[in-house]
Amino acid sequence: MNQTAILLITCPDRKGLVARVATLLYQRGANILHADQHQDHQAGLFFMRVEWALDSGNAPGRDAGNNAGSNAGASSAAFDVDAFRAEFAPIAAELQMTWRLELSSARPRVAIFVSQYMHCLADLLHRHQAGELGCDIRMIVSNHEAARPLAGFYKLPFHYTPFPKPPASPGAKAERELAQIDLLEAEKIDLVILARYMQILSADFVGHFPNRVINVHHSFLPAFVGAKPYHQAFERGVKLIGSTSHYVTAILDDGPIIEQDVMRVSHRDQLEDLVEKGRDLERIVLSRAVKWHLDHRILRYGDKTVVFN
Amino acid sequence: MNQTAILLITCPDRKGLVARVATLLYQRGANILHADQHQDHQAGLFFMRVEWALDSGNAPGRDAGNNAGSNAGASSAAFDVDAFRAEFAPIAAELQMTWRLELSSARPRVAIFVSQYMHCLADLLHRHQAGELGCDIRMIVSNHEAARPLAGFYKLPFHYTPFPKPPASPGAKAERELAQIDLLEAEKIDLVILARYMQILSADFVGHFPNRVINVHHSFLPAFVGAKPYHQAFERGVKLIGSTSHYVTAILDDGPIIEQDVMRVSHRDQLEDLVEKGRDLERIVLSRAVKWHLDHRILRYGDKTVVFN
Amino acid sequence: MNQTAILLITCPDRKGLVARVATLLYQRGANILHADQHQDHQAGLFFMRVEWALDSGNAPGRDAGNNAGSNAGASSAAFDVDAFRAEFAPIAAELQMTWRLELSSARPRVAIFVSQYMHCLADLLHRHQAGELGCDIRMIVSNHEAARPLAGFYKLPFHYTPFPKPPASPGAKAERELAQIDLLEAEKIDLVILARYMQILSADFVGHFPNRVINVHHSFLPAFVGAKPYHQAFERGVKLIGSTSHYVTAILDDGPIIEQDVMRVSHRDQLEDLVEKGRDLERIVLSRAVKWHLDHRILRYGDKTVVFN
Amino acid sequence: MNQTAILLITCPDRKGLVARVATLLYQRGANILHADQHQDHQAGLFFMRVEWALDSGNAPGRDAGNNAGSNAGASSAAFDVDAFRAEFAPIAAELQMTWRLELSSARPRVAIFVSQYMHCLADLLHRHQAGELGCDIRMIVSNHEAARPLAGFYKLPFHYTPFPKPPASPGAKAERELAQIDLLEAEKIDLVILARYMQILSADFVGHFPNRVINVHHSFLPAFVGAKPYHQAFERGVKLIGSTSHYVTAILDDGPIIEQDVMRVSHRDQLEDLVEKGRDLERIVLSRAVKWHLDHRILRYGDKTVVFN
Repeated sequence: MNQTAILLITCPDRKGLVARVATLLYQRGANILHADQHQDHQAGLFFMRVEWALDSGNAPGRDAGNNAGSNAGASSAAFDVDAFRAEFAPIAAELQMTWRLELSSARPRVAIFVSQYMHCLADLLHRHQAGELGCDIRMIVSNHEAARPLAGFYKLPFHYTPFPKPPASPGAKAERELAQIDLLEAEKIDLVILARYMQILSADFVGHFPNRVINVHHSFLPAFVGAKPYHQAFERGVKLIGSTSHYVTAILDDGPIIEQDVMRVSHRDQLEDLVEKGRDLERIVLSRAVKWHLDHRILRYGDKTVVFN
Repeated sequence: MNQTAILLITCPDRKGLVARVATLLYQRGANILHADQHQDHQAGLFFMRVEWALDSGNAPGRDAGNNAGSNAGASSAAFDVDAFRAEFAPIAAELQMTWRLELSSARPRVAIFVSQYMHCLADLLHRHQAGELGCDIRMIVSNHEAARPLAGFYKLPFHYTPFPKPPASPGAKAERELAQIDLLEAEKIDLVILARYMQILSADFVGHFPNRVINVHHSFLPAFVGAKPYHQAFERGVKLIGSTSHYVTAILDDGPIIEQDVMRVSHRDQLEDLVEKGRDLERIVLSRAVKWHLDHRILRYGDKTVVFN
Repeated sequence: MNQTAILLITCPDRKGLVARVATLLYQRGANILHADQHQDHQAGLFFMRVEWALDSGNAPGRDAGNNAGSNAGASSAAFDVDAFRAEFAPIAAELQMTWRLELSSARPRVAIFVSQYMHCLADLLHRHQAGELGCDIRMIVSNHEAARPLAGFYKLPFHYTPFPKPPASPGAKAERELAQIDLLEAEKIDLVILARYMQILSADFVGHFPNRVINVHHSFLPAFVGAKPYHQAFERGVKLIGSTSHYVTAILDDGPIIEQDVMRVSHRDQLEDLVEKGRDLERIVLSRAVKWHLDHRILRYGDKTVVFN
Repeated sequence: MNQTAILLITCPDRKGLVARVATLLYQRGANILHADQHQDHQAGLFFMRVEWALDSGNAPGRDAGNNAGSNAGASSAAFDVDAFRAEFAPIAAELQMTWRLELSSARPRVAIFVSQYMHCLADLLHRHQAGELGCDIRMIVSNHEAARPLAGFYKLPFHYTPFPKPPASPGAKAERELAQIDLLEAEKIDLVILARYMQILSADFVGHFPNRVINVHHSFLPAFVGAKPYHQAFERGVKLIGSTSHYVTAILDDGPIIEQDVMRVSHRDQLEDLVEKGRDLERIVLSRAVKWHLDHRILRYGDKTVVFN
């Protein structure tokens, strides 16, 4: 797989945005592989994701088609990311863009938090090994010992950070979180995945990692917020159960939704059947969100997401 | 299609229930076509639906297989419904059964309530004409004139019962409901379908037709209760929209759920796209509930349903 | 709804394509509402769909966001389609583009062919009346009389073109098709919808309307090609039934697929249940294809489609 | 979880079947937990699955409801399986029943065959560890070394049986299969799971394990039989990809289907995206089939299955 650059833009909508960005990239010789735009006409916002190859012109494989043409002005040397960044910055400022430029070569550093249910963790670790997830998993963090063998099998550091036993002072919880934050910052963690981590994170913790904590909630949000959503769903007699992955904010189960999916249930399904069936949903919904985040496909705005998938 | 009888039972679970019912039916010579049971082990309840042919033994077609055998004791004459009913009643009393015996020949009499959106009404009328719904549609009731042409095309009585213009006395609304109840009772209506009827029915109205009013709510309940669910869904940024059909109770959008389904949406979908996509869900979810109700496949218990489909 | 122009492009992939098109549109003052690109890296092809507003700058509603900016060079007068076309043509030729420019004001003229099953026809006519389909339905054509009342209700011309009774000379069938072609050409029909039309069209007929005949096949193609697909599915014991809408080519059930969907079935479903459940699939799958075609969202290439939805 | 017995019956349909079975079970004091019947009216066949508790009356938990009643004749001692079997055999013979009686305590012995793709194997092993699959996994068999570490982590015997290198004599392949059969028979294997095993089994091998080899084929059968189904699907331009689990017969990809599911794809998905997305389907579709088989929920008849789930 060749290295690529990904430019993500959010800005007030106006005429000529695509032309400006596309022309600049063309002048620099970028070999565009994917481009997506979206306009939220109601909010007056423009979103864009462009991905291009960083290597020189004679790339084999997927982008072979691009090499058919060789217009004057299009360089065939390797793309100069720093020069582009310097040239793009003032344009972005003029157009009030919120933007970032990501490189596929810079693999995000990931920490996975888990409690006693292993299915999401096992799924993520297997996908990572199979090459589905473009990241470096740097640590498993848990308030239980259950994940230690899996961490060992995949040769990953395991940090056991037990919950303070009740009655615990409020300070004890805060202290433990500070230790976790230190751990994450020492390892320069880019993304925290809550893979069925059953402890509520404080606003302070979340504030340290804005748009960088992804959770899976085992219901079709906003139905069944909070504790024991399968119990709630069973009591209500729903005919479908759901699962939701979302960025974590200071308000419980309220962050921007990244992905949701559902599965059919019936009167034949007891509570334990809902729990078991739901595990398949949780795995899929969480892993999709993680993959899209790692591929820089998600733009958050307000309480929503644009997912260029 | 041959005539059938359908026995529906709810009772405390205990040993021997299936044996008692099946043996009685066998002794009377019933040619069973379908049988379903369910036990809610938590609630200690037993549910059963049995359907058998009412005509004599040499029935052609779907039930031909049953005629291969002719055990002693199995009559080949037409099934005597009244005799069965008389014989079954004391057994049912002894076993604390809530039960009813329905005949497929007794087509339920239906009223459809609608406001200004025609898609569910048009769908139900077409399905009825195509033979999908085993009922007699006796009237269309609306607070708008929009449904009159469709009613005319299908040669159905149309009753225009406009909302009292605000400021209306509370009495005016109650009066109109009473007139509607009179209308329904005069026509011996068995089932009221709210096909996107945008007026909230009073507890008094609902009390007249227990388990006999089916509504479609344009969200995945219990998410987005109340007014403008698509607006709520759009604001929340969900990735799936849903629709729910349910029996109407005195509490808004809270009755036992019969069927639900969802459809994928994305950031590309504006509010009006949600509304348009949702129409397909509403049609399907409402028509399934109506069909199952008419086929006597739904057993309500507490706030839930058992659907033997 | 304001009028828009839609530009559709297929061409060999090369650098700078987006920049060329976007810059040209910007110089002409186009207020872009939606833009989609796709590259098939394997085939070396580039696909683009751009839609922009045709009215002058102070448009209300969905495109309000575009008016925030007013760059130099961006005209705020109504967009001059003919001038753009003249300017674009030589560029397109240079870049080996296959392209067309569609106007939302030019509502395609549609003929619906149907046999004895009415569900797809009734669905399309209702959607058209509800404003979901941007077209003029000019005629219903059928080899049965069953559709005449529906055509009458929607005030549409109905043409009864019965199949020649067997034994019919090959010439009789060809003659009837020629009469149908005359009918379609006299009414300048842009799109022929086969809404469960049970007669196979000749290669000659299809050749008159390339990429302009859409069919719905009642299976998940390429499974169960040809006659009686529900029978085939029932015999094979599948656990899902499907439906496929596609452009018609000279080879039966082989044209480029536009949309597919499936529904769960089980051993409880007899053949007639498959047929009934399948009707819901057919309606949805056909109506989506028709809507996307009418909105100029489909680009055919080889035996495939790109659908910008 | 309390121990249960499961009775599975297939026989010609006739009156009184349910009464006979239910009465016999009642007389023996069986505490029925689940009962399902199905009639294929076309084939004239009757199918039944009954599951009852084997422990004595005061069982806690799920079956508490059954203890409310205590009819005369209903024993509250532990259920005598052998006595029931002896009593049932002549009745079954009289009614031409194909039947078996399974005990939940007798955990089936399973072998998993795998080649170089690990996702289905990893999924099954994790589910087994999580308690979802009621079986003993006795061995992993593979023609590659890739699965050895996973087998080691789960402490399972790993058998490496490489393919004979071409040009291999036909005898070499047969010899290897005979060795595999010996291995399976030595371990008294009840079920062979082909978890993406890329070698075709001979009719002879399959004949040794009738209805006891489950495969997952990575397409929506009967579409895309044989090699490289994702390539075939990509070439055809389908809008959904599928996966199918089925019992293996002597004819390739032709055995009775147990479960199928699909996932949406679009023109944006390249071949490698289909492969990656498909892995989620394969995992789910295979694990469901295995679970249902292990829970004795599947009745095969002809080329079809009845799945009482």
